[in-house]
Amino acid sequence: MKAAIFIEPGKIILGEKPIPDIGPLDALIHITTTTICGTDVHILKGEYPVERGLTIGHEPVGVIEKLGSAVEGFEEGQRVIAGAITPTGSSYASMCGFHSQCGGQEAHGWKAIGGWRFGNTIDGAQAEYLRVPDAMANLAPVPDGLTDEQVLMCPDILSTGFSGAESGGIRIGDSVAIFAQGPIGLCATAGAKIMGATTIIAVESVPERMEMARKMGADHVIDFSKVDPVDEISRITEGRGVDVAIEALGKKQTFEAALRVLRPGGTLSSLGVYSEDLTIPLDAFSAGLGDNKIITTLCPGGKERMRRLIEVVGSGRVDTSALVTHHFSLDNIETAYELFANQRDGVLKIAIKP
Amino acid sequence: MKAAIFIEPGKIILGEKPIPDIGPLDALIHITTTTICGTDVHILKGEYPVERGLTIGHEPVGVIEKLGSAVEGFEEGQRVIAGAITPTGSSYASMCGFHSQCGGQEAHGWKAIGGWRFGNTIDGAQAEYLRVPDAMANLAPVPDGLTDEQVLMCPDILSTGFSGAESGGIRIGDSVAIFAQGPIGLCATAGAKIMGATTIIAVESVPERMEMARKMGADHVIDFSKVDPVDEISRITEGRGVDVAIEALGKKQTFEAALRVLRPGGTLSSLGVYSEDLTIPLDAFSAGLGDNKIITTLCPGGKERMRRLIEVVGSGRVDTSALVTHHFSLDNIETAYELFANQRDGVLKIAIKP
Amino acid sequence: MKAAIFIEPGKIILGEKPIPDIGPLDALIHITTTTICGTDVHILKGEYPVERGLTIGHEPVGVIEKLGSAVEGFEEGQRVIAGAITPTGSSYASMCGFHSQCGGQEAHGWKAIGGWRFGNTIDGAQAEYLRVPDAMANLAPVPDGLTDEQVLMCPDILSTGFSGAESGGIRIGDSVAIFAQGPIGLCATAGAKIMGATTIIAVESVPERMEMARKMGADHVIDFSKVDPVDEISRITEGRGVDVAIEALGKKQTFEAALRVLRPGGTLSSLGVYSEDLTIPLDAFSAGLGDNKIITTLCPGGKERMRRLIEVVGSGRVDTSALVTHHFSLDNIETAYELFANQRDGVLKIAIKP
Amino acid sequence: MKAAIFIEPGKIILGEKPIPDIGPLDALIHITTTTICGTDVHILKGEYPVERGLTIGHEPVGVIEKLGSAVEGFEEGQRVIAGAITPTGSSYASMCGFHSQCGGQEAHGWKAIGGWRFGNTIDGAQAEYLRVPDAMANLAPVPDGLTDEQVLMCPDILSTGFSGAESGGIRIGDSVAIFAQGPIGLCATAGAKIMGATTIIAVESVPERMEMARKMGADHVIDFSKVDPVDEISRITEGRGVDVAIEALGKKQTFEAALRVLRPGGTLSSLGVYSEDLTIPLDAFSAGLGDNKIITTLCPGGKERMRRLIEVVGSGRVDTSALVTHHFSLDNIETAYELFANQRDGVLKIAIKP
Repeated sequence: MKAAIFIEPGKIILGEKPIPDIGPLDALIHITTTTICGTDVHILKGEYPVERGLTIGHEPVGVIEKLGSAVEGFEEGQRVIAGAITPTGSSYASMCGFHSQCGGQEAHGWKAIGGWRFGNTIDGAQAEYLRVPDAMANLAPVPDGLTDEQVLMCPDILSTGFSGAESGGIRIGDSVAIFAQGPIGLCATAGAKIMGATTIIAVESVPERMEMARKMGADHVIDFSKVDPVDEISRITEGRGVDVAIEALGKKQTFEAALRVLRPGGTLSSLGVYSEDLTIPLDAFSAGLGDNKIITTLCPGGKERMRRLIEVVGSGRVDTSALVTHHFSLDNIETAYELFANQRDGVLKIAIKP
Repeated sequence: MKAAIFIEPGKIILGEKPIPDIGPLDALIHITTTTICGTDVHILKGEYPVERGLTIGHEPVGVIEKLGSAVEGFEEGQRVIAGAITPTGSSYASMCGFHSQCGGQEAHGWKAIGGWRFGNTIDGAQAEYLRVPDAMANLAPVPDGLTDEQVLMCPDILSTGFSGAESGGIRIGDSVAIFAQGPIGLCATAGAKIMGATTIIAVESVPERMEMARKMGADHVIDFSKVDPVDEISRITEGRGVDVAIEALGKKQTFEAALRVLRPGGTLSSLGVYSEDLTIPLDAFSAGLGDNKIITTLCPGGKERMRRLIEVVGSGRVDTSALVTHHFSLDNIETAYELFANQRDGVLKIAIKP
Repeated sequence: MKAAIFIEPGKIILGEKPIPDIGPLDALIHITTTTICGTDVHILKGEYPVERGLTIGHEPVGVIEKLGSAVEGFEEGQRVIAGAITPTGSSYASMCGFHSQCGGQEAHGWKAIGGWRFGNTIDGAQAEYLRVPDAMANLAPVPDGLTDEQVLMCPDILSTGFSGAESGGIRIGDSVAIFAQGPIGLCATAGAKIMGATTIIAVESVPERMEMARKMGADHVIDFSKVDPVDEISRITEGRGVDVAIEALGKKQTFEAALRVLRPGGTLSSLGVYSEDLTIPLDAFSAGLGDNKIITTLCPGGKERMRRLIEVVGSGRVDTSALVTHHFSLDNIETAYELFANQRDGVLKIAIKP
Repeated sequence: MKAAIFIEPGKIILGEKPIPDIGPLDALIHITTTTICGTDVHILKGEYPVERGLTIGHEPVGVIEKLGSAVEGFEEGQRVIAGAITPTGSSYASMCGFHSQCGGQEAHGWKAIGGWRFGNTIDGAQAEYLRVPDAMANLAPVPDGLTDEQVLMCPDILSTGFSGAESGGIRIGDSVAIFAQGPIGLCATAGAKIMGATTIIAVESVPERMEMARKMGADHVIDFSKVDPVDEISRITEGRGVDVAIEALGKKQTFEAALRVLRPGGTLSSLGVYSEDLTIPLDAFSAGLGDNKIITTLCPGGKERMRRLIEVVGSGRVDTSALVTHHFSLDNIETAYELFANQRDGVLKIAIKP
């Protein structure tokens, strides 16, 4: 089968691999649509290390080709998605509610490796076929009425974006600032809206993303290339600060700005994957006396999470298909990577079809 | 092998059964100690229906005899317990955090049958061997330093009792009333203590249980055969009412009394298995205006829960081995049932050893 | 001044009273708009007892006429609302977060009388002037851009309705059933929508209310005069049951139906003011084993609550002004009562202007 | 009256001041016992700026001398404490549940100055008399059976220490590490114990404090001058990390160590008052992917909080009087400061009596 394979830093190619074997708890999925994530670009650039020869990608939409001998509750031919994070369901972490930190079956305690397996520790979704581990915990059926594009954001982008709003504990009437409006930031904006925030402030500078931010629910969009977002958020909230700030970029300066705009008692919900040490400036932190929270969240996975996100999409509450700006066949995935990595042509997400 | 088998209402006998076969996700446990639960007496009396021929019992301590082909993370010969409730870990209910309501693998939605399988829908623990389903989610290793008796309460009594305190949301400085001081009520009392309640009021009339209530943490013990507990609790709390009332009997009148002693905003945490319709008297409920909560909780299971309870026992914070008032061999389990069902001889819990 | 005065069961008349005196912590409000609540009808009918001679009403919009000597932070001439419930802010209940159960300053413990004072224990808002106790905790400024009608639902209807959704702990992707679509039920429907529920099922039989339910966010509206709502909700949720059921009528049978439609682990959020004992049928309650919650909530008050609700209205997220179906001057309030009590002419709420 | 007055950095002297006047919402307290806090030493050294001429101290035990004209619910002659933080009860922050961030009555939004007033923005408790603002929200009666020394830790040390455990969300069976065992760290250790943690690890190097840590509930005490606490905590938890780490010193390196010992999904509960920018090392933070929380908490105040802490002390659950290692009269407070600031003679807390 064809698969997008990491060869070395700077090089992901379309290559040939055997169709995966499956064990008793696994499922084999025939991929119908997948996409490229910003994390994949980190892998491409060598900023996030994975083994050479690994198939990349963690956002699968497809059809069940084959089920492991111990798998019950699903049928071959069913249309499904699986989350980017694939918890076992039976680890200590999973049973404690931290599915994203599920590191496999372990006799003594937790391993901190996290539940991210596709395109990280096992072969991923940018291929014709995908082995889904712990299938009973991870396969989520897709209703007939929904297109692949409509559910394509569920495995990662929508799950992560919404979790930024959820971990922030947004309440009806909250004011929320979201730093960066890439795909995840846009879904965080949609998450703030759907949870009842009434003053939603998005920070971005790319015109297409600023416009999309309004569509996803932003009441105010700040162009940080023109004004200082900390000052502007202070102005909008009449000096009060926001209840929740969501960091959706992964940079030191946005992390600090997100701290600075919080009201006393406010929460910084961090979605970024950082690549440098962070600083907590004494003044931004009220010397530790501000009753503030900093919460980091890894994309929630598992079939119950996917089921809920499919419900959201199916209900029409949030339309993420507008984030799919480009389409490529798997054959042309190298070009797709080039376009996506350079953020050319107003790209947000690319639907890739084997 | 020998097993305690439900024949018909009024009759549980010690009989012979083949050692269970196991599937790929199961484990076979050689039981070293088990016990009888009040629920088993309901089964004996025909008040709770199960299939004829079923092996009874849901509180196993034992040694792993054999592991299913897909089970990882455990070894044969390991000493383990499993919870009374055995979630799959991979159901929608389980992944949503409601492990006790886990009804097996299901493609569409939840089944309300609950996660209680041992001695209810599959053969139970009052036998020489036990098949544990979904072993990776349910087996919890027991450290060498702990005796069987020390961990024997973890699968049900301690897990249920503590959950009464946990679902009540007990906070430091709370006042808590616990209605009935059988084994579960006593563990609820211990749970209130370990969570920081500072005024703990137990309601009971059996002298041995009243005395044990003090050992488990009660600051006040009310003999309901001598004084009205609602009046007495009002007196102790200076008219304020309690923050949390825990119902640990399963009767209509204790449920109502538990409602009546709540402060505005207080929580009734119900552990009882009821056998009749309940009434919410208008006045006890402030006509719906009291900001009150009624929360029911089924015994939490799964290996992470068992791990925590074993930690509690191992730390010496709570000593439940004092609840084991009698010992019997499995050969004499019919006598043990007779003693336990009639609550003779100050019995609290009986350790049964095959 | 003119005021709507309770004379005896069956009789509320427009009478004359002196303008209230105020104490150091109070404010005097010149009422510009108020309304009649279902609870006022209970008072009229003698179903809820208040003292004869009391001015009725608890939903004030007005202008500050005079401030008590110890009141800081407000100015005479400011446009404000106050909540139906007026917590002191300094009671044990208030400081514990249960503002609605605030019973005034007390040295020892809580009083269960609740924080509802206007038109209950002190003179109310259906008058030309209103004394607001504990003004610093209760006055909420209204921005110039909002009309009286836009904020008229904030003091009670919107606060109560939203609290039904909030106490239910609604999460993104939840299914929610709301029993009865009077003004409070309609606001509960809007609350379910704004908190992220994706399957919202309203139960009602009055055509105008069924239509309004759709406008407020219902995805399904069940006419209980034509089909059994329990069966129909089971059908819509494919046998799963709802995550949250909201009771917004205050009747025994809707309470029971709301219990029956819950999934295992689901929550019944009760907003009703009941006038009879309730029954919890054993089967609807899974004998106490369903991990269910029953939560009652009294309308949250206080200026912070009002501030948030004004934000919601100001943001355009929810438009409650559509609920104002009729207008009357205070001079004609007796006619307004007659119309409202008999639910004639499709009435939902009546704006009353002195 | 006599009062400990801040003159300039390095100089707090015992001077003369008039007995405070009180307003309608205030109370005048005749101080019977007070104490010196680490924060007072920061003020003494000029590290935390306050106005010259201010009376220092925020931990009062005393008797009501006089009540403001609008104060109800208390009596002159009553024995009381007041918290270090004195919320108004009626601010937006207070009514939102963030009493510690209560900045007084404000018309528009929150002020971030916090609710710490005694010895910070108004005259404090190291004096013969103290004006308590918003008395109805802040005075907490002391039962006759408790000595001044027994309740002396409630206003700050116990409230702060416990809040470290509470904000950490400690659950039954948790493992908790507490960095530093000064008075606040010791109370955090007691808080971890009273909330049900079963593996409590204290980090300290002063022998007397290490010994006291065991008395307050530590299962393990690590001498950081001899072993690396991060390694040692990893060893004790078998590589798992702790569920909650509490920082009780206010230093950059303990903050980082507390981050490093967390399990995936674990919480860093920070009590420190920092005086430098903090760093979040990328690896200690799992690049933002660890589902971790960092929560800072300012000492909770208000009469409901004090009531609960008095309950704890009165119940005998925690005995903080052992923390009072020295006694001085107010006349000798300058000597007391000298002793306390230099941590001579095994000092933990000093009872000061006017």
